[in-house]
Amino acid sequence: MRHLSTELGDHDLLSRALAGERAALARAISRVENEAPGAVEILNACFEKSGRAYRIGITGPPGAGKSTLVLRLAQEYRGRGETVAIVAVDPTSPFSGGALLGDRVRMGELSGDPGVFIRSMATRGSMGGLAVHTAQACDVLDAVGFARILIETVGVGQSELEVAQTADTTVVVMVPESGDTVQAMKAGLMEIGDLFVVNKADRDGADRAALAIQSALELRAAPSEWPVPVLQTVASLGQGVAELADRLEEHLEFLKEEGGLDRRRRQRVAQRLESLLRDRLWDAFRARVSDAAWHEALEALAAHRLTPHQAAERLIGGASHSAPDTRIRGKGGTGHE
Amino acid sequence: MRHLSTELGDHDLLSRALAGERAALARAISRVENEAPGAVEILNACFEKSGRAYRIGITGPPGAGKSTLVLRLAQEYRGRGETVAIVAVDPTSPFSGGALLGDRVRMGELSGDPGVFIRSMATRGSMGGLAVHTAQACDVLDAVGFARILIETVGVGQSELEVAQTADTTVVVMVPESGDTVQAMKAGLMEIGDLFVVNKADRDGADRAALAIQSALELRAAPSEWPVPVLQTVASLGQGVAELADRLEEHLEFLKEEGGLDRRRRQRVAQRLESLLRDRLWDAFRARVSDAAWHEALEALAAHRLTPHQAAERLIGGASHSAPDTRIRGKGGTGHE
Repeated sequence: MRHLSTELGDHDLLSRALAGERAALARAISRVENEAPGAVEILNACFEKSGRAYRIGITGPPGAGKSTLVLRLAQEYRGRGETVAIVAVDPTSPFSGGALLGDRVRMGELSGDPGVFIRSMATRGSMGGLAVHTAQACDVLDAVGFARILIETVGVGQSELEVAQTADTTVVVMVPESGDTVQAMKAGLMEIGDLFVVNKADRDGADRAALAIQSALELRAAPSEWPVPVLQTVASLGQGVAELADRLEEHLEFLKEEGGLDRRRRQRVAQRLESLLRDRLWDAFRARVSDAAWHEALEALAAHRLTPHQAAERLIGGASHSAPDTRIRGKGGTGHE
Repeated sequence: MRHLSTELGDHDLLSRALAGERAALARAISRVENEAPGAVEILNACFEKSGRAYRIGITGPPGAGKSTLVLRLAQEYRGRGETVAIVAVDPTSPFSGGALLGDRVRMGELSGDPGVFIRSMATRGSMGGLAVHTAQACDVLDAVGFARILIETVGVGQSELEVAQTADTTVVVMVPESGDTVQAMKAGLMEIGDLFVVNKADRDGADRAALAIQSALELRAAPSEWPVPVLQTVASLGQGVAELADRLEEHLEFLKEEGGLDRRRRQRVAQRLESLLRDRLWDAFRARVSDAAWHEALEALAAHRLTPHQAAERLIGGASHSAPDTRIRGKGGTGHE
């Protein structure tokens, strides 16, 4: 727990962030991310103002060149007069993990542009909390007025897929090497992509990779009205980036017209509500269980005197007089007591 | 929800699995994984019998050659007379995602060996559930008598790190290419590895990579009494695999002598208990909230009439007469109602 104490009131902090003060914005996001005092107030205020930004998730395996593509896309959007925030959730992204040599170089002309804001999310933390924290950071950026939010995640982990799915549109980035598509299929990426990009398309096999993705898309469990584009880019040279921006804007229009944007945002907010409720239920439960009872249960577990289900049963029984769920009775069916 | 119905009683299923019937074992694990009827009874019985197997987590970036290393390590253990179960949680593993061409070939002499059992875990599912499901599958394999359980995960995602940490010992596998170590550091792998392996060490830069890992290890936040080995292997040729097995056995002895094994297993079981309780609390809560109230909250959220925190507050207030947690009051601090 860091003490981001009250040297600046929440109201002040948020007003300053809304007025475009970058340090205040960074501090507001940190406060939200660390669940520091005032976080809920900031979030409540931001949620009411949010909903205008177009949130784009950009995911794919490590080494696909997502960070470079994200920077180029940000430049493209800046050229079109849109403000852009970049949220890096990918632990392998050069934006993440503190100040790495080369970040400034990579940022190029974006460095110092007040229409761009880059933020990396800490990827350690409570289970399931990453998607919620990312969505909350996006709420702040959205409320402050960034028009396009690019969320960079790495598409291998389960939590990371959940993060990608907090966006309005999901872009899956791959490289031409064979095997990449098969891995993407197994990692669940084929099902969630609204646009596919074969990056580093100046390497051998880009056409073949794009065709393989096209074929794989035909096997999707849930086909959509939207004809999923498979683009080729060379992000390091900026090739194909304008077309990517065009297709993204088309997808936004498609989602608005077809009702998908509302539907996605409803799903997203329902997931956030569930996650928030799960945490609050757990905190309240843990406050009701005495430390003695908790440690007794852990001792019994460690000694294999109780199984996890039996221990859970006992703690829930002890913490509440109503027995809300009797589905799991906690009895072994094989003669053990 | 698949119907793995009661054509075979739980008692029968487990007795047959314990007697070495592979189909029954596979079915018992599926039942546990799908939380099908009888799952809790199977788990309770298995938990009591488990605790003898040495669980080894093997993690690292996609493409590090983890699957090949796991197979070679399994062969090495078979040569030493130990039974081995492989649990693939890595979505990019060739063991995962159904029957891929080449699996039988890769398995080589292990195919058909009754002392080896390979299982892949579905990586889609509820938040935070993956680590619990993996630990439960390992309980079944442990109870049935497999002496060594190799858990293959991919070390990029948050859930996947949690899975790796359900093991007694964690092996981090990398390749000689530069940048790999930096990415590993950012993905949190440097902190959790008990052994490091530079695989594909016949490529250029293996010595340099091993040195870089050694230096990075000196920066660890929590140094240990255990001198973390950094090995070099060429898994495809079986090189270095015997030494890996030796070091693993040494680590097991170290953990037993120094008390770390008990400590790790206590932490692991505490995490499982928390995860189980969180799910039960959520299920019980959801059963208490009417569908009407739930949908009303979602509507209010979608229309931005309520923020997620306010909606959570309202639902928790409505579902229980005691207000167990008043820490978050659900009031905006900036003049919004």
